[in-house]
Amino acid sequence: MAQYIDMDNVRFLLHEVLNVEQLCTLDRHKDYDKAAFDLLLESTKTYADNMLYPVFKAADEDPARYEDGKIYVHPSVEKIIRHAGESGAIGATFDYEVGGMQLPHIIYAAMSHIAQSANNSLTGYAGLTSGAANLIVTFGTPELIERFTPKMISGDWGGTMCLTEPQAGSSLSDITTYASPNEDGSYNIKGQKIFISGGDHEYCENFVHLVLARIDGAPVGTKGISLFVVPKMRKAADGSLESNDVLTAGDFQKLGQKGYCTTHLVFGEKNDSKGWLVGPMHKGLKCMFQMMNGARIDVGFMAASIATAAYHASLQYAKERPQGRRILEGGQKNLEAEQTTIINHPDVKRMLFLQKAIAEGSVSLLLQASLLHDLSTVGSEEDREHYHDLLEILTPIAKTYPSEVGRTAVNAGLQIYGGYGFCKEFPLEQYYRDIRIMSLYEGTTGIQSLDLLGRKVTMKNGQAMRVLTKEIIKDIKAATNYDDLKPYANSLSVASKTLEQTLMHLLQFAMSGKHERFIADANIFMEMMSNIVIGWQWLRMATVAKTAMVTGKMEFGEAFYASKIHTMKFYFKYELPKIAACQATLMHAEALTLKEETESVLV
Amino acid sequence: MAQYIDMDNVRFLLHEVLNVEQLCTLDRHKDYDKAAFDLLLESTKTYADNMLYPVFKAADEDPARYEDGKIYVHPSVEKIIRHAGESGAIGATFDYEVGGMQLPHIIYAAMSHIAQSANNSLTGYAGLTSGAANLIVTFGTPELIERFTPKMISGDWGGTMCLTEPQAGSSLSDITTYASPNEDGSYNIKGQKIFISGGDHEYCENFVHLVLARIDGAPVGTKGISLFVVPKMRKAADGSLESNDVLTAGDFQKLGQKGYCTTHLVFGEKNDSKGWLVGPMHKGLKCMFQMMNGARIDVGFMAASIATAAYHASLQYAKERPQGRRILEGGQKNLEAEQTTIINHPDVKRMLFLQKAIAEGSVSLLLQASLLHDLSTVGSEEDREHYHDLLEILTPIAKTYPSEVGRTAVNAGLQIYGGYGFCKEFPLEQYYRDIRIMSLYEGTTGIQSLDLLGRKVTMKNGQAMRVLTKEIIKDIKAATNYDDLKPYANSLSVASKTLEQTLMHLLQFAMSGKHERFIADANIFMEMMSNIVIGWQWLRMATVAKTAMVTGKMEFGEAFYASKIHTMKFYFKYELPKIAACQATLMHAEALTLKEETESVLV
Repeated sequence: MAQYIDMDNVRFLLHEVLNVEQLCTLDRHKDYDKAAFDLLLESTKTYADNMLYPVFKAADEDPARYEDGKIYVHPSVEKIIRHAGESGAIGATFDYEVGGMQLPHIIYAAMSHIAQSANNSLTGYAGLTSGAANLIVTFGTPELIERFTPKMISGDWGGTMCLTEPQAGSSLSDITTYASPNEDGSYNIKGQKIFISGGDHEYCENFVHLVLARIDGAPVGTKGISLFVVPKMRKAADGSLESNDVLTAGDFQKLGQKGYCTTHLVFGEKNDSKGWLVGPMHKGLKCMFQMMNGARIDVGFMAASIATAAYHASLQYAKERPQGRRILEGGQKNLEAEQTTIINHPDVKRMLFLQKAIAEGSVSLLLQASLLHDLSTVGSEEDREHYHDLLEILTPIAKTYPSEVGRTAVNAGLQIYGGYGFCKEFPLEQYYRDIRIMSLYEGTTGIQSLDLLGRKVTMKNGQAMRVLTKEIIKDIKAATNYDDLKPYANSLSVASKTLEQTLMHLLQFAMSGKHERFIADANIFMEMMSNIVIGWQWLRMATVAKTAMVTGKMEFGEAFYASKIHTMKFYFKYELPKIAACQATLMHAEALTLKEETESVLV
Repeated sequence: MAQYIDMDNVRFLLHEVLNVEQLCTLDRHKDYDKAAFDLLLESTKTYADNMLYPVFKAADEDPARYEDGKIYVHPSVEKIIRHAGESGAIGATFDYEVGGMQLPHIIYAAMSHIAQSANNSLTGYAGLTSGAANLIVTFGTPELIERFTPKMISGDWGGTMCLTEPQAGSSLSDITTYASPNEDGSYNIKGQKIFISGGDHEYCENFVHLVLARIDGAPVGTKGISLFVVPKMRKAADGSLESNDVLTAGDFQKLGQKGYCTTHLVFGEKNDSKGWLVGPMHKGLKCMFQMMNGARIDVGFMAASIATAAYHASLQYAKERPQGRRILEGGQKNLEAEQTTIINHPDVKRMLFLQKAIAEGSVSLLLQASLLHDLSTVGSEEDREHYHDLLEILTPIAKTYPSEVGRTAVNAGLQIYGGYGFCKEFPLEQYYRDIRIMSLYEGTTGIQSLDLLGRKVTMKNGQAMRVLTKEIIKDIKAATNYDDLKPYANSLSVASKTLEQTLMHLLQFAMSGKHERFIADANIFMEMMSNIVIGWQWLRMATVAKTAMVTGKMEFGEAFYASKIHTMKFYFKYELPKIAACQATLMHAEALTLKEETESVLV
């Protein structure tokens, strides 16, 4: 079988970098220990090997499709959802009392990462069901929880989130799905939703949609949006399931993730679609965002998992494929010698390190974000706020960096295969297609960048930014314990100050009321800040690796740790310098993309 | 119909920037004038509108495929090849005496650019036939020319170039297709070739393959490679066509360019495949490279044409799609107002300018390269050498920049469509797939970068580099005639010096015999140098535009010229600063990708 993940890397991050065992001292997770975590990871890998990776390509070749009002998906979806229910994966992080396992988010995330590296599209069905159930568990009444979540946790019913509408796209202010109160406390739902992942198929007997809609007379904008649970089938008076007037109108045919259906749903065409309010009236977006933040981390993981799988496929190919010869002193080649394997060509090795730096840097950040999720729900209020602020500011980066730069990594991986990379026999072309959706899902890169610069960086007067900077400085200090890491620690310190300086420059616009100018290049700011955040991940990994080498406690073998340090160096040579370009652009005097300056010049 | 090109841009570049009319004073092109050129461009556009663009998506959905030993392609291929033959396009640049039109290469290139923007894959069949016929015309004996080229120029026979073999890939030293001399002066050809574009289909009665092979006993390496013409069908004693033992063994199924077949050919399975030597024995690679250089420019054009089409599709969408609201002073939005079209969001506008900067910058460079092709074949020996040197050093860049950075442009274009960009109903996902092959065709980016740094930059003791620098300085001086262009002229001058300084640093390695170290980061050097070369294109376009605005001779309207200047500014703000990062990487003290340093660290 082709390789798609390095389990040692997962274990290294969990145990040696992030010390997940700290969570086992908490009351919530006291039933777990290191061995239990490792067993879960190992069994996930076995399952992924046997059930997920083997249908990775098959589901792409037999895409989800719409016929006669129904969605058909790859037959393996049935087994995969069944397994997710039976193994407890869907409710893994939920409380025991609602049927969950109280597993830390970080462990569930690591398991998902393994599964998604094997198959990034078919794993989505259960993942989204988990998110939807979590929303009901968190904000729903006990009655709604009781009515919907057990069947979702068991995998019998699927769950979705319904935000996007054709006329509104990313602009949720403009959604026009309406909810009119019924006398029985339910609401009559009417409207259309598009791009609904996992919205319908034959292997779940019911679908539970979490729908954003406006109650009649609600205020304009996002402050008038409420959240409803709207099942495809509702319970009839006799206890059986009857139609709830949720029509499946189509399935979008996509560039990638073809095994994962993307549906168009019509609610209330016959004025008979009932929904129930989840959380407070007009506060639906706030509730949805609790799920959305988790979903953004999930998307980041999907992207990082694709980049991971692509890296291991390319690495394996580069080690096996003979081609060409090394260049000797003086520029000659020895034509009498056998061809070398391509991993020995500097440019191929550069692309491999680039893949590794991006993929493993992303996974490191995402696991840290998952740990912050766990930590932000326990401990003192001060602690929780600290971890919550960190998570808030890292979330748009953890979603965007793997999606955007992960695509660059996959692209490099494809290039390593040469012409074969473009061919269907090899997996890279599929990774190249699959990863492209990640910068669109759950808030495009543009939206994430506005969130980062326009909201997170400035929130609480810059509190989250200060907390993050402090964390980075702490790890820079730790690195300086080792002489040979000092130059890199210093580079990151300089980079961090460059970011601060650039931010100060931009904030002048916000302070003088020029908000459009302030956020005009938010994408470039995202590029710059995420580059530094990943540099931070690498410096921390290198420090842990160095400690292992110095102390001789090298559980994964010396090459593993040496590789971490080498890849950190690679990142600092090839990636970090890019922040200088971002700074130059962000501090450039000209505003070239505002309407006033550009009304007539694009022809 | 969707827009895919701006004809004014083509005319602006040809007439106002590159002054193609200068060619009409040459004896070779004396039958042409501006009106004739414009008529050819216009009729190409009409043809592209009516015949090529309408089957762009259809041919993708009905890909070339292999069944029962035959290749089936989209039925429109028949008409397209027929038209190429009848219109004279295949032999357009050839001498009158061999049935050509003696059209300047630059005009043929502009026509191809229009056609490829409408349909990048189905235009390949005739394009490659033209290249193959040109090779025979240039190096073949009169007898071979007479035997093969008339049927190729008429479009009855297809032409291909056969370099790649399964075990050799980019390493042509290692090809094992053999040629054994027959008594009749022909050679017996035996071997396999893969990735042969346009290698077989039902709409040509014969295929003429230009095949690289080793004559028995030839020296090892590329110095023992000869070039042969090997037809699929050969003339029998009775004058009819009989099989020449060229077997079609398969068609590679690809990520994109699905309408363009990519075949696997087996020569001489029955020991009965005859080939005829083209050019001198053992000098086949040199001959092939004459065609290859043209083919590299062609690939650059294909990429630039895809980026062009993607830009115009995105621009049209951004002008029509309402979504969201602009951010007002103080950061608020007016929720009572109607949604704005997305072109007014700074980030969307940034992506559009990015697309325009890359696409039009690429086309400008490629048309200049085509003009250099024309100029390098006329005039004094000194002049020809001057233009030839320039063309030599610009060729790898003209191939690579549109292929690599054009992909970034298409990616931005897809992002502008939001979720729809990932869906099959819109053209961007196809452009995203199609353009991916361009950095693999005709020498990967790695190969082009080695060519640029390891060969072109250093050739003739740096002569080509000096000539290019002189040209850039000349255009910098011209820009300084206008006060408001001075800052950009100055930036380019600084950038050019930064490149020189970086090159000097790298050359130390070459001079001390450390060639592998010298070329280890050739890709980064390519990125840096091509960035500057495109900056040069933009400065020149802006200078011409400024002159038009100052003199009031604005044939394409004021907005067109203003847009050129604005896009130049955009390029200098957003793209040019990236060279600083390249410099930092290239001048970094650590060598991290050489075998010795990295033997065991990739895990």
